[in-house]
Amino acid sequence: MNAVDLIRHKRDGAALDTGAIDWLVGAYTNGDVPDYQMAAFLMAVVWRGMDPAETVALTLAMLRSGTELRVRDHIAPVADKHSTGGVGDKVTLAVAPLVAACGLPVAKMTGRGLGHTGGTVDKLESIAGLRMELNPDEFLNLLERHGLALSAQSSALAPADGKMYALRDVTATIDSIPLIAASIMSKKLAVGPSHLLLDVKVGSGAFMKTAADARRLAETMARIGADAGVRTVAALSAMDQPLGRAIGNALEVAEAVDILRGQGPADVTALCLHETATLLHMAGLVATEDEGHARAERALQDGSGLAKLAEVVAAQGGDAGQIEDTSRLPRAPYREVIAAPQSGYIARMDAERIGMASVRLGAGRLKKGDPIDHAVGLMLLAKAGDRLDAGAPLVEVYARDTAQVAAIHGDLLDAYTWSAEPPVPLPLLLGSVSGGA
Amino acid sequence: MNAVDLIRHKRDGAALDTGAIDWLVGAYTNGDVPDYQMAAFLMAVVWRGMDPAETVALTLAMLRSGTELRVRDHIAPVADKHSTGGVGDKVTLAVAPLVAACGLPVAKMTGRGLGHTGGTVDKLESIAGLRMELNPDEFLNLLERHGLALSAQSSALAPADGKMYALRDVTATIDSIPLIAASIMSKKLAVGPSHLLLDVKVGSGAFMKTAADARRLAETMARIGADAGVRTVAALSAMDQPLGRAIGNALEVAEAVDILRGQGPADVTALCLHETATLLHMAGLVATEDEGHARAERALQDGSGLAKLAEVVAAQGGDAGQIEDTSRLPRAPYREVIAAPQSGYIARMDAERIGMASVRLGAGRLKKGDPIDHAVGLMLLAKAGDRLDAGAPLVEVYARDTAQVAAIHGDLLDAYTWSAEPPVPLPLLLGSVSGGA
Repeated sequence: MNAVDLIRHKRDGAALDTGAIDWLVGAYTNGDVPDYQMAAFLMAVVWRGMDPAETVALTLAMLRSGTELRVRDHIAPVADKHSTGGVGDKVTLAVAPLVAACGLPVAKMTGRGLGHTGGTVDKLESIAGLRMELNPDEFLNLLERHGLALSAQSSALAPADGKMYALRDVTATIDSIPLIAASIMSKKLAVGPSHLLLDVKVGSGAFMKTAADARRLAETMARIGADAGVRTVAALSAMDQPLGRAIGNALEVAEAVDILRGQGPADVTALCLHETATLLHMAGLVATEDEGHARAERALQDGSGLAKLAEVVAAQGGDAGQIEDTSRLPRAPYREVIAAPQSGYIARMDAERIGMASVRLGAGRLKKGDPIDHAVGLMLLAKAGDRLDAGAPLVEVYARDTAQVAAIHGDLLDAYTWSAEPPVPLPLLLGSVSGGA
Repeated sequence: MNAVDLIRHKRDGAALDTGAIDWLVGAYTNGDVPDYQMAAFLMAVVWRGMDPAETVALTLAMLRSGTELRVRDHIAPVADKHSTGGVGDKVTLAVAPLVAACGLPVAKMTGRGLGHTGGTVDKLESIAGLRMELNPDEFLNLLERHGLALSAQSSALAPADGKMYALRDVTATIDSIPLIAASIMSKKLAVGPSHLLLDVKVGSGAFMKTAADARRLAETMARIGADAGVRTVAALSAMDQPLGRAIGNALEVAEAVDILRGQGPADVTALCLHETATLLHMAGLVATEDEGHARAERALQDGSGLAKLAEVVAAQGGDAGQIEDTSRLPRAPYREVIAAPQSGYIARMDAERIGMASVRLGAGRLKKGDPIDHAVGLMLLAKAGDRLDAGAPLVEVYARDTAQVAAIHGDLLDAYTWSAEPPVPLPLLLGSVSGGA
């Protein structure tokens, strides 16, 4: 095998066979193929794409670059869920304990945030003492004991993905559906659940800006899951405006607790119940999705979902008291309500722009390794479709000081589009694709 | 400026402005932009191309990465000629002294061979003692004293090209007309002649396989030359079969001497006279191309072209006696004539395949830094259009031993296509493009 020949083949639009892809990923991971050859290859993939067989081969080669946890060999069925990332997306924080409380174990490894989307690890680390960097043994022990483990992505799993992602980030080769699918799925398959639910976000606040791209990504990931013997559903959901009302790490933990108490915003609560029902149904714990929905609602009402979250937070060294009383979570010292600049209906909210305003407060990262301020963020006091009078409360900013608020004030208001007529409501759930036995 | 943004722009099909290209080339040359970012950028250029303004900006940025000799500030007019490379292409060896003998100084820096095409430096180094690695002062002194200097490409000129070419070679990003044009023209402009003749080869033995690609390359280079204030003509010539009869370093030097004696093969002699006439006319030394042609023929007949070559070889430390008597050039110890395997007309000769057979004898390099055997090569005893009886002499192999001949025998014969009817002769000169005042 010869890297130049493989780059040339892909450059010229040819499909690579499994042996060639295996060799390339292996040689790159162990350093025999240098970054510059992989960078040229990745740009050729952005250009030419990969067919389904190539994409599966790439995913499996990345999977085999490291340890495979195979949690389904320890406990089964066992679920995982993954979101491609959005603004205000705290769904994992609520769904993981809710599903576990309904009797389906959840093995969740998750990432840190970058850019306008938050990361579940960052959000959970708002809780004092909570250890998210678990080694594989700790992860498996928690899973077996509590039916739920929440961990930062282990670098021992799919290390080729870590190395390739870092390279893609600095070579403008992120935007490729086969590369995105292989990156996500290699990490999910390395954990090794029996059932996997993928939430592919689509819209202004998501990586996939169009429904067509989101559907292609969903189909690609569902096919990879099926090929690897994991029952996979990839659901498409809207990210045209932020999800729920809270944006920012501690604020989103508090909102997740509200959801688990049955007191969360309607949109995000509906999505959490839907995902929980889907997973319970996929794994055969309920006969129908409706039954799953009812089971999930019971776990909100009887408090078992919230109790499961508190139980695992405590097991991972966190202060479960902050879950019981979210006013004890870190809270920004300065709060300011921004008023509606005009009367009318909120026609649209640019989720990416709102997410970036939150990042500039310190709630997220512009680049890897930047510190996070868990206490800051935004609380949306109105959402698309709401009618406000000029001067009415629009959004509350949780900041370090007034200067921070002034710095984002204009950009935040620019994220809103107003209209005299009520906008046509957009659906939150946009369909799903499934794969696997 | 930010390399990722520039890569992303090019990836998305946008044109980069001059400032952006200047920054990128400068930052790459001094190491601030790493190989992996340049590799991704180059693949995006292979994909998206570059418009004329970008290509000029790239060339000038590469030019400014090093020393500019500006030979035209020392002696004017002063010519340069460059061939994009072919098999048996010894034209520079004859044209440079012929033009100089006609009164137009020639400043020629040239490269080493790679793959199926030979390099003028390697050919000249067949001559005992000849120093081709000249520093800029030596080069200028020779030019002023003799009206002719022949040197290996100085690494002080357009160093960005050296660094980028090495990267392109290992990332499958050679095949891009703007990148090829910028690479060639940055080196030519760094020498800084007043008049430049480019011979763009097209056909099976050339880098440009189609007339359309060759014309695009010719137009691109002529435009760059014009933009830089250098009168430039880019001529297209056929490389469907090897040029002349000799292939291999010392064999080609001997054939160049034959040409300068008026005893060379008709095809390559015609090309040499044509190029000489074009340059003399471009520089205003003659009123018409026909007059230039007559002047060039006189320089063959009176021996002044050959005398100029011998003069400069001696001035550069070489054994001019080997020019007077080419039987004293290195000669392979073993010679074997391969016979025509059938009767008929030679319809086609695959120049690239014949060139590779010569490389396998040791006359060329498979990779940079490989040693060269100056004594070996091929002498074509028949060319396309000739009619042979089976068993008649077809090609004479100059080798180290019989095993070398056996190793290339089959592949060499496969390069010939035979027909019962005489083939339609193909023209050698395919047109030209000019630029500049």
